[in-house]
Amino acid sequence: MSEFNLIQTYFTRPTPSAELGVGDDAALVKISEGKELAISTDMLVSGTHFFPDADPFLLGHKTLAVNLSDLAAMGAVPRWATLSLSLPYDTHSRPSPLSVGEGRVVDEAWLQKFSEGFFALADDNGVELIGGDTTRGPLNLCVTIMGEVPCGKALRRDGAQVGDDIWVSGKLGQAALGLANLQGKFKFYGEVREACLKALHQPQPRVALGLALRGIAHSAIDISDGLLADLGHILQRSQVGAEVGAALIPCVDDGVEEELALRCALSGGDDYELCFTAAADAHDALIALAEQLKFPLTRIGYIRAELGCVVRDAQGSEMKIEKAGYDHFT
Amino acid sequence: MSEFNLIQTYFTRPTPSAELGVGDDAALVKISEGKELAISTDMLVSGTHFFPDADPFLLGHKTLAVNLSDLAAMGAVPRWATLSLSLPYDTHSRPSPLSVGEGRVVDEAWLQKFSEGFFALADDNGVELIGGDTTRGPLNLCVTIMGEVPCGKALRRDGAQVGDDIWVSGKLGQAALGLANLQGKFKFYGEVREACLKALHQPQPRVALGLALRGIAHSAIDISDGLLADLGHILQRSQVGAEVGAALIPCVDDGVEEELALRCALSGGDDYELCFTAAADAHDALIALAEQLKFPLTRIGYIRAELGCVVRDAQGSEMKIEKAGYDHFT
Repeated sequence: MSEFNLIQTYFTRPTPSAELGVGDDAALVKISEGKELAISTDMLVSGTHFFPDADPFLLGHKTLAVNLSDLAAMGAVPRWATLSLSLPYDTHSRPSPLSVGEGRVVDEAWLQKFSEGFFALADDNGVELIGGDTTRGPLNLCVTIMGEVPCGKALRRDGAQVGDDIWVSGKLGQAALGLANLQGKFKFYGEVREACLKALHQPQPRVALGLALRGIAHSAIDISDGLLADLGHILQRSQVGAEVGAALIPCVDDGVEEELALRCALSGGDDYELCFTAAADAHDALIALAEQLKFPLTRIGYIRAELGCVVRDAQGSEMKIEKAGYDHFT
Repeated sequence: MSEFNLIQTYFTRPTPSAELGVGDDAALVKISEGKELAISTDMLVSGTHFFPDADPFLLGHKTLAVNLSDLAAMGAVPRWATLSLSLPYDTHSRPSPLSVGEGRVVDEAWLQKFSEGFFALADDNGVELIGGDTTRGPLNLCVTIMGEVPCGKALRRDGAQVGDDIWVSGKLGQAALGLANLQGKFKFYGEVREACLKALHQPQPRVALGLALRGIAHSAIDISDGLLADLGHILQRSQVGAEVGAALIPCVDDGVEEELALRCALSGGDDYELCFTAAADAHDALIALAEQLKFPLTRIGYIRAELGCVVRDAQGSEMKIEKAGYDHFT
């Protein structure tokens, strides 16, 4: 299958909201009046972000989901994406089974399922794929996503104010527990395991939450590297500190040792929930929003003037945290 | 060096034209009134697009250049870019020499030179780096570039008209000859070799030409896969055909066998010149433009109604072309 046919078959869909979609040197889009463009990019690498034998449908979903999560954290409406693929390739066999390591192959069925997972989530979020690149090489998936937000209304990391409450969406640490389980570091079973593996493989970007938080939240970030690392980015950019109550953090509370669940919630990556800050008087509105969105929003602490982040246990003692989050280079 | 420090040290520069640059979940930009946004993305993979021991300064240049070339082909003014890097990494040595294969390493000096090459070309073209991603994995460089073009004025592939002249910029086939030389397939020397290696390693995106062609060219494309392959895209999208005169094509004319120079010009990749079509009465304006830009613009044929592309030799006989261009998957 030629590069042209591969793009045509798996990655070319109608793009009614673009002036020009896949198939030229560049795509063309018009930005709505009074809107800014929010742009984010995330690269997923086989062996670093996913197992070589990852289910291709779920991988297509996750490749887009982690990017949508960044737009959610800005309060932007998702509009367009580009997708660049480096695909392992065997020039001597046709139809071509493409090795992705450890005997697994990328073939046409893989591309079909990957694109289905990608477009299912794209359709759910009104995203159009308007361009990309395909090349030969180690399996690598890179998306750039673009969304619109009214001028000056984006949720940024640098807006946290002293006295703000700190909130998180959903349940934290599930993806890290799911990964630890797959790596054989830790055993658990049943529904809890299912939920953790689903959080790892099929994260649900909190786009609707991000939109609802415009005008309410003073700052926001998505939790991709771990709660403390990502909250730390808000603190650093806003030049403030925080107190967090360990007992307040929404952890996995069934089938897992409490201390492990907390550690994964504090420092585990890949959650794709939102962490945000808001004035204390927004409390009731946020509880009502949680009911409407049908997932929890939980207050876990508050912003203080003194720099640094203190986590306190149920007795009010400061806890020692070994590692704030995931870093690709340390 | 942490991921945060790496980004801070090598890839964070002022971005005065963006509302928000590197350091949040997404960047924010405002599009100028009456302009459309042109978006393109290109991924460069070690071993596929460049040698593992490629000079990092030149690699930084080329990573951006191939993307700028796409905007040039649209007649868009370059504005912003994101850069995603997958870097090979050794967790056990610090300062970390990062292996990129065959004993070569990516270290801090490599990153410094790569970013210098990238930003030198970015500065020349008014491009601001507003975001990106860094991760661990096989060396992979992915840029998404954004530019502005007045609504409805972009140069597209689908506008070629019967009777149009076909033009190309610069000299074609140099990069392919340079690559063949480095691969040991072919020997040559002196200034011609220098020029060919420079075309391969440090292509000059034809941004000024693209801008000047707005209102003159009916269609345009950049030559990245080979003249015939890329002209073929114009023909296919415009539903027209072409006649090309082999003797008209600007080839390397010194130190290289004529037939090889022509073959590289017709089917070699990596040229990053523009191929465009324009009405016959634009001839004099284009010759004047070439003088102003200080590189050649050459008429190589014309657009006809009958589909397909015929290349004729100096005697007017149709030439057989084995391979139209480069394809990553055939």
